[in-house]
Parts: sequence; structure tokens; C-alpha cells
Amino acid sequence: MSILIKNGTIVTSVNEYKADVLIEGEKIAAIGTGLEGRADQVVDASGKYVFPGGVDEHLHYNSFSSLGYETSDAAAVGGTTTVGDFVVQPKGIGLKDSIIKYKKEAVEGKAMVDYVLHGIIMDPTDQSFNDIPFMPEVGVASVKLFMAYKGMDYYATDDSIFKALQIAKKCGVTIMVHAENADIIDVKVKQLLAAGKTGTENFSLSRPILCEAEATSRAVYMAKMANAPLFVVHVTNRAAAEVLREARAEGVQAFGETCTHYLSLNDKNLEKPNFEGAKYVCNPPLRPQEDVDYLWEAIRNGWILAVSSDHCAVIGGFAIAKHRGINDFSKIPPGAPGVQDRLHMIWTYGVEKGKISRTKFVDVCCTKPAKICGIYPQKGEIDVGSDADIVIFDPDYKGVFSNETSLHDTDYNAFEGFEQIGRAEKVFFRGNLVAENGKFLGKEGQGQQVMAKPYGLCYDGFRE
Amino acid sequence: MSILIKNGTIVTSVNEYKADVLIEGEKIAAIGTGLEGRADQVVDASGKYVFPGGVDEHLHYNSFSSLGYETSDAAAVGGTTTVGDFVVQPKGIGLKDSIIKYKKEAVEGKAMVDYVLHGIIMDPTDQSFNDIPFMPEVGVASVKLFMAYKGMDYYATDDSIFKALQIAKKCGVTIMVHAENADIIDVKVKQLLAAGKTGTENFSLSRPILCEAEATSRAVYMAKMANAPLFVVHVTNRAAAEVLREARAEGVQAFGETCTHYLSLNDKNLEKPNFEGAKYVCNPPLRPQEDVDYLWEAIRNGWILAVSSDHCAVIGGFAIAKHRGINDFSKIPPGAPGVQDRLHMIWTYGVEKGKISRTKFVDVCCTKPAKICGIYPQKGEIDVGSDADIVIFDPDYKGVFSNETSLHDTDYNAFEGFEQIGRAEKVFFRGNLVAENGKFLGKEGQGQQVMAKPYGLCYDGFRE
Amino acid sequence: MSILIKNGTIVTSVNEYKADVLIEGEKIAAIGTGLEGRADQVVDASGKYVFPGGVDEHLHYNSFSSLGYETSDAAAVGGTTTVGDFVVQPKGIGLKDSIIKYKKEAVEGKAMVDYVLHGIIMDPTDQSFNDIPFMPEVGVASVKLFMAYKGMDYYATDDSIFKALQIAKKCGVTIMVHAENADIIDVKVKQLLAAGKTGTENFSLSRPILCEAEATSRAVYMAKMANAPLFVVHVTNRAAAEVLREARAEGVQAFGETCTHYLSLNDKNLEKPNFEGAKYVCNPPLRPQEDVDYLWEAIRNGWILAVSSDHCAVIGGFAIAKHRGINDFSKIPPGAPGVQDRLHMIWTYGVEKGKISRTKFVDVCCTKPAKICGIYPQKGEIDVGSDADIVIFDPDYKGVFSNETSLHDTDYNAFEGFEQIGRAEKVFFRGNLVAENGKFLGKEGQGQQVMAKPYGLCYDGFRE
Amino acid sequence: MSILIKNGTIVTSVNEYKADVLIEGEKIAAIGTGLEGRADQVVDASGKYVFPGGVDEHLHYNSFSSLGYETSDAAAVGGTTTVGDFVVQPKGIGLKDSIIKYKKEAVEGKAMVDYVLHGIIMDPTDQSFNDIPFMPEVGVASVKLFMAYKGMDYYATDDSIFKALQIAKKCGVTIMVHAENADIIDVKVKQLLAAGKTGTENFSLSRPILCEAEATSRAVYMAKMANAPLFVVHVTNRAAAEVLREARAEGVQAFGETCTHYLSLNDKNLEKPNFEGAKYVCNPPLRPQEDVDYLWEAIRNGWILAVSSDHCAVIGGFAIAKHRGINDFSKIPPGAPGVQDRLHMIWTYGVEKGKISRTKFVDVCCTKPAKICGIYPQKGEIDVGSDADIVIFDPDYKGVFSNETSLHDTDYNAFEGFEQIGRAEKVFFRGNLVAENGKFLGKEGQGQQVMAKPYGLCYDGFRE
Repeated sequence: MSILIKNGTIVTSVNEYKADVLIEGEKIAAIGTGLEGRADQVVDASGKYVFPGGVDEHLHYNSFSSLGYETSDAAAVGGTTTVGDFVVQPKGIGLKDSIIKYKKEAVEGKAMVDYVLHGIIMDPTDQSFNDIPFMPEVGVASVKLFMAYKGMDYYATDDSIFKALQIAKKCGVTIMVHAENADIIDVKVKQLLAAGKTGTENFSLSRPILCEAEATSRAVYMAKMANAPLFVVHVTNRAAAEVLREARAEGVQAFGETCTHYLSLNDKNLEKPNFEGAKYVCNPPLRPQEDVDYLWEAIRNGWILAVSSDHCAVIGGFAIAKHRGINDFSKIPPGAPGVQDRLHMIWTYGVEKGKISRTKFVDVCCTKPAKICGIYPQKGEIDVGSDADIVIFDPDYKGVFSNETSLHDTDYNAFEGFEQIGRAEKVFFRGNLVAENGKFLGKEGQGQQVMAKPYGLCYDGFRE
Repeated sequence: MSILIKNGTIVTSVNEYKADVLIEGEKIAAIGTGLEGRADQVVDASGKYVFPGGVDEHLHYNSFSSLGYETSDAAAVGGTTTVGDFVVQPKGIGLKDSIIKYKKEAVEGKAMVDYVLHGIIMDPTDQSFNDIPFMPEVGVASVKLFMAYKGMDYYATDDSIFKALQIAKKCGVTIMVHAENADIIDVKVKQLLAAGKTGTENFSLSRPILCEAEATSRAVYMAKMANAPLFVVHVTNRAAAEVLREARAEGVQAFGETCTHYLSLNDKNLEKPNFEGAKYVCNPPLRPQEDVDYLWEAIRNGWILAVSSDHCAVIGGFAIAKHRGINDFSKIPPGAPGVQDRLHMIWTYGVEKGKISRTKFVDVCCTKPAKICGIYPQKGEIDVGSDADIVIFDPDYKGVFSNETSLHDTDYNAFEGFEQIGRAEKVFFRGNLVAENGKFLGKEGQGQQVMAKPYGLCYDGFRE
Repeated sequence: MSILIKNGTIVTSVNEYKADVLIEGEKIAAIGTGLEGRADQVVDASGKYVFPGGVDEHLHYNSFSSLGYETSDAAAVGGTTTVGDFVVQPKGIGLKDSIIKYKKEAVEGKAMVDYVLHGIIMDPTDQSFNDIPFMPEVGVASVKLFMAYKGMDYYATDDSIFKALQIAKKCGVTIMVHAENADIIDVKVKQLLAAGKTGTENFSLSRPILCEAEATSRAVYMAKMANAPLFVVHVTNRAAAEVLREARAEGVQAFGETCTHYLSLNDKNLEKPNFEGAKYVCNPPLRPQEDVDYLWEAIRNGWILAVSSDHCAVIGGFAIAKHRGINDFSKIPPGAPGVQDRLHMIWTYGVEKGKISRTKFVDVCCTKPAKICGIYPQKGEIDVGSDADIVIFDPDYKGVFSNETSLHDTDYNAFEGFEQIGRAEKVFFRGNLVAENGKFLGKEGQGQQVMAKPYGLCYDGFRE
Repeated sequence: MSILIKNGTIVTSVNEYKADVLIEGEKIAAIGTGLEGRADQVVDASGKYVFPGGVDEHLHYNSFSSLGYETSDAAAVGGTTTVGDFVVQPKGIGLKDSIIKYKKEAVEGKAMVDYVLHGIIMDPTDQSFNDIPFMPEVGVASVKLFMAYKGMDYYATDDSIFKALQIAKKCGVTIMVHAENADIIDVKVKQLLAAGKTGTENFSLSRPILCEAEATSRAVYMAKMANAPLFVVHVTNRAAAEVLREARAEGVQAFGETCTHYLSLNDKNLEKPNFEGAKYVCNPPLRPQEDVDYLWEAIRNGWILAVSSDHCAVIGGFAIAKHRGINDFSKIPPGAPGVQDRLHMIWTYGVEKGKISRTKFVDVCCTKPAKICGIYPQKGEIDVGSDADIVIFDPDYKGVFSNETSLHDTDYNAFEGFEQIGRAEKVFFRGNLVAENGKFLGKEGQGQQVMAKPYGLCYDGFRE
């Protein structure tokens, strides 16, 4: 089967040009003119932009009690054709085995988009660390540790992170960290609760900006001591972003991403009445508007490389799960859905507001995520030989974000009522049209694992 | 006429992939597989890299008594298919008219590669500044001023630069500056000469690093006050590069390039006996090795965007022109040839030494220069619709840099005797093979002006 | 004649303690207990603070058409017993001779407080620079140059400053600069006037903050290149202060002062109707409140060393002189009186507002100025052997600043109507009571030159 | 009893002047001339400097198995009349009670110099923290926590430090931290030992510079979050010192000291053969010479406030105690003697080498330590009313540091064989001559506790 996408404007992370794209099978076979004769089918993209399928390098399916791949059609209709999913290591199971088990039990037969898997060390012991060099065998080239969450099994103390960094760099695996100071949060939460401050508006107070900046700084110091690259997930504020920028200025290989919600929502949302604030509880918390503004500058200037959704659709949703914290903000399960809306949100509030260019949009939503995950140029690019994951994007569409049109299967949308400009009109996934105007046309289980190569972007230019 | 470049590995500023390139006429018509049937001619590139033709955004043909376009075959054989030439404004002639006159008298009928023209304000008066908005009409979108050279007509004081910045930003023209503190140089030169220090080894002492860093800092302050983008040519050292890096960290639109020789030669060359040091006299001077090392870090990390040759083949060469300064280093005409060797030097001492990747090589030698000049994606890219300026690069070639094989028509080569790895085996220029293995196959006058678009890279993300 | 100041609390730049001070002749002879028997006269200072007499390291008597020493009783009643006066070099007269001439013609027989003289190079030629090493012979150890004031004789270009720095460091003379970019101001003034913006509110727009920060930065670069200490007068804003702080963090010997008005008045004053804004025209201009707030932090933390008045009581005052600029803000002669109010303003708005401690007050108003001027410990200290310049300060006094009680002999007071807390109740000047409760009790001509020693504070720790 | 010290040159932290000092009883009664008649005894100090007695704000008597006050005559002969001693909190005893117990059992009747006590939280629980506000009642205004020493009872995690900071700031107590990342050290030690690297030369590798800088940075972040002042003990290197300098530049109240050995010994000492390296094992370790050099700049420029000895004369000395680590560097008890040599070392290698001035010497060895400890101006100053702790210093003395002349009662001296210039010729302690030319003339038990006042130097300018 061959398809020619005709008359569109191709946008990549560096260029914007008019050319037709010929898909043969699952791959991009040719780009150019005069290709009509080779196509079984021609799709007209006049007046449309032609992007690579979105790569969402950071989300949670099944992990931490979130909904899983049975909701991954939401990604597809939102123009995201590859997700980077964090695999929780179950108790008593090796890090590598956790990948095999998860894939078999939770992913295969369900995934509706392609996926690249990241490890999560939930059991920060030498045994787990020693598995790191074998992760690429199961297609995993990045492993996350949690500096937050004191008292949990997966809370990683500095020695764990340091050892993980030491081992990882020998095999090109990228260590990712959730950077918040667990101790400070622990004190803050207890002090707030003891003072009777139990409402959602206290959530951001319990995890201050400097608590994230400190942990980011500490992780950078450890990366320097281990002489290893580092990737910091969900950077939410100026202070933390500046730590990374300064690290880069010293030549340290330390990079970060931010997420859709940190670019579009601020901490005022946590003050919403009727426990509505709970919908916006995610870790780290939403921040003041001045940090939101800074993050746009940070992605525009390349101080932060990518934008993920950190999608986490808590099982039980707002009605049940979030309400567990009705009398204690610290019991609200963190996380919010977002995989469907990422591209549309960043386009609407980034490109349309003049904050970033179209090429930067593709860069932070598709290309850099693929590079970070070690799956470029198979994913995240419109070049010959790359997977034919292609979005035909209609810039003229006007709509409204709403849970009504969300396929994520939870009971709210954090962007409810936000104006939407532009839409992924048609989404091709390895050569097949799988979504059109918000409808999913593909089938369960069509998604495959993309095998991550070690020595991804964070290793670019790395010197032992 | 159509040509298919087959079996090569295409390298762009972001990707590296195997695909064939179909040239039709002067343009890239298609990239992909299955294009054989459309080609009049097939060129095999097995085992070779396929780059965009080099873009050398900064050189001097005819200006400042350097040899002109009659030597531009040197560019072509070196894989550079577009040069950015600085046009000196003659006495009594408007800035815009200077472009028209120069093109007619010095370029047309001679140029052997394409060229984009930059203005140089030699007469820093309001009349010249008022011409700035009209420069795009003659294809010019960048104008340079000299902060160095006290006492010369073209020495631009701060008021000139500030006014030029104010006017330029309204029409998307990029102000470029040669940043050295003219006053300090003036004092230093006089003091050295008065102390009997007339030899070439004093040249770098007469123009200290901080004298460049200071002027760079001052230009950045002026850009901030004028709220205008800024481009600093030939950044030579860490202190100056850090000024730009810090400016970027504040969100200022201030960018810079460095040059081949600052990445490969150090100030020890100025101490060579028998007046050989004079060959290495260029402004700003060569710097200590630690700065050379830093500059590689700077291009690797994106703190400096591009690498030009600042080619300037002084008429009279070493034998005559340079010898004017035999008793007074300050009388040595600055400048050295380099347009032919730029790509080969950066490949050999950058890529082959493990300092930068192949994609970064293309980025700093081809793509970013084109973006800076406002001629992207016509130049500097391998994408459909771009000019078919293509280098087939043989990474296995081993040779030696030498004036013997140089076409620049002067009597020395600053890289004489340096080992060379890799070579532009075939160079296609708007669809025609114009050079092969160091031989020029094109003809005089084949080069055309590339019309620069305003709002080039330095304006990317610029906010009024 | 011997006097015992009894029962007071002595405050120095580091300590606060109760002890009596015995004055014998012009000097402090002893500090301690049991000194009653040695005193001809006992002054009770119960409940009072005992400070060193104020040292105002920066003011203008007679220079630039300001009133002269005939108004220096204002200093005395304000608790300032030593002034640092800038001597303008007249046309055709050597730098050293200018001091001799000025002292004879303008100072002797008139001065009512002691004075230390600074040179001002109005004729920035080698001849002037060559006089620098001989300045200590006439008691001068600091020389100022003006980076502002384009087109004026005394406008010093970078070569002048650089050469002055080179020569000065060999003999321990401190180069002081007025740091504003003359070119930018020139452009800004012309553009504002051309746009019909002639009112006083445009004054601060014509001399932007970055224009001062740039010149400060440039001066620091030159100090580094000359490897010489530097003192920047009247730092007015955060950006400029940060340049100095960063220079210090690099170990550069670059220091600065600010002035009373920059700590107490903001740029809103320039908008006052009925041309009242003209009263607040001084160079550099008053700044936004956030800079005012920062300057307090800067003196508290030692990033700025001292507070002077930059007193300049323009001849003709508001009624005549300032009105010269009624139709053109650039014609308003800059400067304002302030020598009388400095100590009282800094006490009221610094100490009483909790911004600085009493010891810091003494440090920035007395001790550091004396050290900067090279006249410590003769002046600026309460220690045995120091001049008996002593203020008995009543912290309980409440009053209002007003021109009615000002002895500066001009027709307005920039602090008119401001609340005053505390007062220099008694002022001893080399052992004599010369002021009491705002009344001058001394006599014309009692002031003597304090011979400045080279290698003052700015040279402390200086390495050749 | 009254004594007049005559004809000396008094040196304070800001001034240097000739005057006589009259001691009456335990206090300085007067400074000046004409005091002869009041003295029972006259001591001639012609050609000598007269300093305040040294204040060594950081040493360990009895704690951590070091020798105690029975060796404190060593302090006295070295010119140090007040020591700041860290009191270890024993298991099961409250923080406040630990002071009472220690004083009674280990200090009273033994101390030969005055002492100010610091608390050490060895049991970092809320109970201990809740004692902090009551510490001033027992004369303690500073409490130390250990970020190093993983696995020990006294290892303080971030929550402990944060809570201690929160409580301390409410009552003006200064939190001091030993800043090294315990986790990283733990990993490093294990890895080195596992690799068979057991020798003393591995000691500094096991505690890298960045491990100290990281902990310093973390402590600063916590101080910012708690909005509390912070004091970092024994800063050893540039990276850590720069963290504090940058914190100050942000206006954070974070300060630090360094120690004699970090200013005079480098990490090469750890490589000494025959286990001699063990003599130089102290925490944090000695650093490379470039850091040593930087620390001098840091104290000269005020980026580090004071110099202590961190004296710790391990019971058993080199022969027994240090040899416990003969096969495992990590078992070497850290610490070295130094209280006797501090003033002489800093004078010889600071003042005599031209690195710091005499006033700076007094500042970092006497005045600032007293201010940090909250015992100024009773100690650390030569002013009327201060304790008559006075050193008559002979700058002409030449000698050699040696254990032979050391009274610290251990079996080695880290400065053995170093040249000495200058000596504390006579040491007055609250009015009595207690040491002369290295001989102790006082008696056991003469030392008293100096009651520390809360809100010491680290609170200066602190804003809630």
C-alpha cells in the first residue's frame, strides 16, 4: 500500500517547505515532486501542515494506578504516534524482567500507538543497578529514579542515583530523575497538616519551587561527580530551569523537559472551590504565572529541550481517586490526563500566541523527544526511511478542549473549556490512517515497541 | 538535465540517513528510493556522505585589497557553493548604491559560486543608516560595522552602532559587528612600537582578548538598549564567547560565529621566525590554545552558531603585502586565505578528532550560516525545493593541506602541511558538477546573487 | 584645651561601646574611663551616640558652576567635617598646577571644614596623564575622568582612561570614573528633543540604566587590562552595581559608591509639574524605586562601599540656572545640594527604617569614605591619634528637612518636607565645637587640606 | 591590678595606630596617651604589634575522642585566649543538658583559656530541636549538624537541618553545618576499598570537592527555604566557597569559615610514605594547591569570614589512633591538632607572604570569629570595655614549627618543620600575663565560659 500526501507544507524541526510525501508500507519512501505515479492513494494536504507524528516522551500507562493502553487511542487522535512509557518495577522482580513482564501483561495486544519503554527503579539496590547494562537488550535506554517520595520503596537516596549514573554511563543508558527534595516535602506536608491546612490550595506550598531546584542542583552535582549525562523530567519553574542552564554553560550534559500543564496552567488552579483544585494536583505542582512565562522562554531558547504530557489518568478519576484527599491534600493521587491534548495545547498557546515558531513546535513535541528516547530518526522526523508517522494538521480549525471529546477515559480534562486552534486532521501511523478529526480509526494492539538505542541525545558530545 | 545521487548517506544538521537525491535542473526534486527512472545520469555515492554545499557566511572578495571572485573557484573545490561577501561602501556612495555598484563591477561575470552580499557601513552617517531599510531591495539583509580601526573612515563609534541597531530592527536587517575596542588597540600599538617591539609576535599583545570581550559586551548592551538582534563576527576566545552565552541566558538575541583559524591555529604561530608570523596576522588575532579548545566546546554546545573562513587573500600576498610590516607589525595587512580549506579543516580537526558530530559539522558549516544570512532553505539544506548544491564527501581521503593545491591565488596557505582527512569529492552547484577531487570544472560567472530575506536567524523569536 | 566627651555610646564601623573620649588639642588623646581629671571641659553625651565626623568623599565646590566653600558651613552643621572636593582642571593648566591654583584661589580662607582634593582631568592628554605621579605631592591621590559628556573638553575616551589607569597604578593613585556611555546619551537626547519631548520627565529616558551599566562594565574591562584598581562614583542602579559585584567576585579591584539621593528619591520626582522636576536633575538620573531598594541591599552587603552627597549647588539655583532648561531638559544644569543632609538622611531612612545598622552607617558615611580618599585613620575613625572630628548625635530629635534650615545657600532642597529623625547635636572639628543643633559656630577658613596618601582602599590587596 | 602596655602599635580589624593600652582588672580601661600614672606595671611593646587575643571559633576538646582542656595551655601560648568548643550531645541526654553536663564534667577546673560553647545535635529528633530556643540560657547561640557521616547517630538528614533552621531563626541561634554529601562518600569509600585502594592517598578521593560543594549548595537552599541564616564550617575549596559567594550575591545570609590547614597544606600530604599521610587525614580532606590559593583570595576578599583551627588532637595520636586505619584509610580517625599554631601560621603564610594585611589577619583570627560566636565585643577587639585579652606580637621572631614546642600533648604536628615568622611574645588573658615566649604562665581552671548572645554576625541584616 502506498499513499501520497500531496500539496502540504512539511514542517520539521529546522525547515518548512512544500513537497509531497510518499509512504510505502510503514516507511517514508520518498519526498518530492513527481511521485504521483507511485501512489495507490493520494491525500490532499493543501493548506495544511505536514508534521512528524508526535512523540510524548513521558507518560504513565498502568503505572502508579493510572489507566493503561486501552486508552491509548487518545494519543493517536491527538497526533501522538509514539509514547514513552515509564515501567514500574514490581517488588521482587529484576529491572530487566520488569520490562518483559510489563510488556507482555499490560501492553501487547492493547497498545494503539507505538511505545518506547523507560525503566523505573522501584527497588534501588545493587541488583537493580546491575541490570542497567542489560536494558538495551529489551529496548530500554533510559531509567528513572525518584528523588521525591520519602518513605516509599522507590524513593532513591543519593547513593542510588550516584551508582545508577556510574553504571549507566558505561552502557549509554540515560538516567532520568524526578527532582524534588523528599525530606523538605515531608516536613512541609506534616507542618501544613498539623496546622489544619488540609485543602488543595496547600498542595503547592508543600512542595516549594526551591525544593525542586535544590534536587535538580543535587542531581547535576552527582552527574558531574559520576561524569555521566542526566535528564531531568518535568521541570516546572525558573529556578530549576536555571540550574540546568547553568550546568549546560559549564559544559555538563544535563538536560530537561517540561510538560504541557506547566506551560499553560498556574498554581491558582489549586485554589478552585468545591475540591476542583484536586484535578490540578500533580508532582511537582503547578507554579506561579511568572514561571509559566519563563518556561516558554526556556523552550524557545533551548534551555529546556522538550515538552511531554506526563499523562497520568488516575484510576477512579476525580470522582473517586482524587476524592481520597478531600480532607488531606497529601492523599490526593497526583497526575492528570494530557496525552491527547499536548500537541493542540502547545500549538494553540505556543505557536498561535507567537511564543514559538512552527519548527520549534515540531522540535519540542516530536524531534527532540525522539532523540532523548533514542528512537530517532525512526520516530520524530519526516525524512526518507523514517516511520511513516505523519500528522496532517489543519491550522484553521477552531474548537474547545473538553472532556466530552477526550478518549482518555477519565472524568475530567484539566484544559476543559480552553479555546483550541488547529487540529490533527489526519494521523498516519506507520503508513495507515489511524485517526481523523478526533475519531480513532485504528485498532487495539497495533502499537509496537520501538527499540531504544543507547547513547541518545543526552550523550551527544559526552566525553568520558 | 536530471541527476540521481545514489547510495550515499545524507547528513543534515539534525539527521543522517540513507537515501538517494534526485536533482532536476537547479533544484532538489526528490529524495528517496525508486527514483532511478527519472534520472538522466546516476552518480554513485556508496560509502560517501552527501552534504549540502557549504555556506561561508563571512569572507572578503575585493574588499580591503583582497583578491576577488576571479579566485572563487577555490570555494567551489573546497565544497563551498555559497559565499557571504562583505561589500565595502566607497566614499561618497550610498549604502544601497554601493551594493549595486560592487555587484556590477566586481562580481558579475566573475563569480564561480553563488554569493549573498552583506553591507559594510564605511561612512557611518545618518544618510548611510537611512539606507538600511532599503537594503533588502538589493538582496542584502545584514550590515556590518567596525568597532575596531580607530581613525579609519569606517570606524563606527557607539552612536553609529546604536542608531544602526534601532533602524535595522524595524526592517529585519541584522547588524553585525567586528568587536574590538579601537581605543585600547590604538594605545597598545603605540606603546609597543615606542618600546621597540615591532615584530609579529607583538601583534596579539596589541589586541588583547579582553579588548575583544569588552567590545562584545558593549555591543550586547547596545543591542539591549535598542532592543535589536545582534551578530558578532569572528569570535576568537572564551571571554568574548562567554559574553554572548550570558547574553543568551538573559534572553538577548545576540549571536556569534567563529572562524576556521581560531579553531585550529594558536598565537604561537605569530612567533614564527623569518617574518613567517606575518602570515598569521588577522583581526582579531590568533589566541592561546586554551581558547582554541574552548571554541570547540562553544560550537559543540551551540554557544557559537557557525564557522566561517573570514577569507581575505591580500593582494600582494606574503611576499609583498605582508612585508610592508617587516619593521612594524601594525602595518601588516590583516587577513589570510581560507575559503577552500574550511570544510576540510573542520571535518579533519572537528569530526575526525571526535570534537563534533557530522550533523553538527553540517550545522555550523552549511545550515546555520544560511539561516544567519537569510538564504535558508534555498541554501544550506538537503530538502526538496532547495538549490541542488550538494557535496559528495569521501571520508577515506587522506592528504595534506598545501598552497600547491590551493586555488586562492596567493603565495601561502595558513594551514600548510596540516594533515587532511576526507575530501569534497564531487561538488554539485545548482545541479551541475563544478568540482571534482580538487579540480574546478565550472566556469567564471556562473555564480549568482542569492537574495537575502530579512528577519534571518538572529530575529528568530525576537520580540519588539 | 582638652575636652572630655562623657557617657556617650561610641559607634565605629565595627563596634559600639560605652566610653569617654578625651580630646587634647586637635586629636583624640585617649578613650576610656577615669579621664575626667585631664579635661578642661566636660561635655555630657548621655543617651547620645558618638560618631566620627562624617567624610563626604564626593562633592563639587566651585566646580561646574556650583557654589563653593563659602557655603561649607552646611557640611559642618550636618556633621560632615571633611569633604572630598573635585578640582576642575582649567584650560591650559597642568593637572598638578590646577590643584595648587584652585586651593589658593577658591579654598584657602574660605573652607569651614577640612577637605581632601581629587583631580579631574578636563584635558585628557598625555601631558595631563604625566602629571598623575606628582599628584601626591600636592596631597591628591585620586583622579576622576568623565566617560559621559560627549563633545565636552573633559569627555574622556577609552584611550584616555586606559592610559590614566596604567600610569596611576604605578604611583598608587586611584582612578575614579563617572560611568555613562556618552554616545548613547547623545543619540537619546537628540531623538527625544526631535520628537518634541523636552520636559523634565524625559531626562531619565535620555540616560538609561543600561547606559550606566555599560560604561561601568567597560571601565572594569579597562581596569582589568591595565591591571589597575578602579573606583566608580555615583552608582545609581542594580545593573551597574551588579557589574561591580561580579567584578569583585572575579577578584578585580573595582569598587563604587552611591549617593544620598539615589537611596531616597526615585525617578517619579522628575515628573513633578511646574518644572519642579528640574530640581531633581542630576547625572546619572534618579532611578525607579526597585533600584533604590536594591542600593540599600548593596550597601548593607558591602557591594557598594560608601555614600556621598555629590553635592552640587548650582549657581543661580532653581530660579535661574535650572530654568535655562525650561524648554529643553538637556539644558538643565545637573546637580543638587546635599552635603548638609547626608548623615541625617541615611540615618533616618537607613538606620531608623531598619535597613542598615548603626555600625554600617558609620562605615559608609565616615570610615570607608576616609579609606577610599586615602585619609584614614586621620579622618573617619574614633581611635587614639585620629583627628578629633566627632559628632554627638541625638537619636531622639524629630524634625523635617527643609531649605529654611539649610545653609547651602541655594533656593531649594531636594529633600524638602521629608521627616528627619536624629540630629548631629554637637560637632567637634579638630577639637573645637563648630556646630550645635544646626547652628554653625566655627569660622571661615578654619578648614585645612587633608593630604591624601596614595594606595588607598582601592589598592588594598592589589597585586601588580 | 593595672597594667599599661606602652609604645606598641595596636592592630584591629580596621585600623593600625600607636597608643598605649591600660588594663584595669580584667578589662581594657583606657587607650591613649598619658596613662602612665594609672598603671601598677608598665610593659614595653616598642617595635611590637598589639592584637586582641585570638578567638578560635571552631575546635574540639573532648568531643570525638580528642584530648581536652588539660591541653588548652597550647591555645594560650599560641595567642588564642578564647576557644569555640563543640559539645557532643550524649545519647539520651537533651541538647541543653548536654551543655550543662559537659561543662561540669569536662571543662570546669581544667580550661586554661576562655571558651564559648556550640551545641552539636547528635540525636537529630524533634526533642533536640525543641531545645534550641533554650540554648542561649546556657550561653550557647550556635548549633551544628553533620551532613556527612552516613550511618552515624549524628548524621543529619535534610529534614533535620531544615527543621533546625526553622526553629533556630526564631531565637537567633545560628545553625552551623558540616557540609559533605554523606551518601556519595559512603559509595566512594566502599568502591575504593573494594578495589583494594586502602592507603591514605585514597582519602581525598573518597570525599571529592564536589561532594562538599553539593552539600554546601543544599544547605544554602534549605536556609533559603527556611529563611534562616546559615554558617558553614571548614570550607576547603573553591567550588564550595563559590557557592557561598553566590548565595551572598543573592542576599542570602550564608557564611563560612576555613581552617589553618586548608590554607597551608595540600592533598599531596596524604601521599606521604610510611603511613605519614594519616597525620593529614581530616574532614573534609586537604585539597589541591589551586584551592589553597583560592582560599587566600576568599579570605582577603571577605568571601570567607574567618579562620579556625578545627583542632582535634585524637586520643592515641598518630602512633595508636591513626594507625587503626593502617589497612583501611576510612578507619583513620580524622582530625589534627592546630590551636597553638593558628595565629603563627596565618601570620607567617598570610601576612608575611603578602597575601593579607595585618588588619585582615586580626579580622579573620580574632574579630570575625568573636562576632560569629556572639561574644563580640567582649572578645576579639581592642576597645575600652572589652576583656583585656591582648597579644603582644613580636614580628621579628624567627623559628620553626615543631611538635617539640607544642603543648597539645599529641605525638605529631601537622606543620612540623615549617618556618615561622613572628610570635605571640606576651599573652594577656583578662588582665593577666598567661604566656610568654611559648611558656604557659597561667593555671588550670582559669578559663571561664563566655556567654554567647543570640543574633550573632550571621543574623546581621537578617530579614524575617
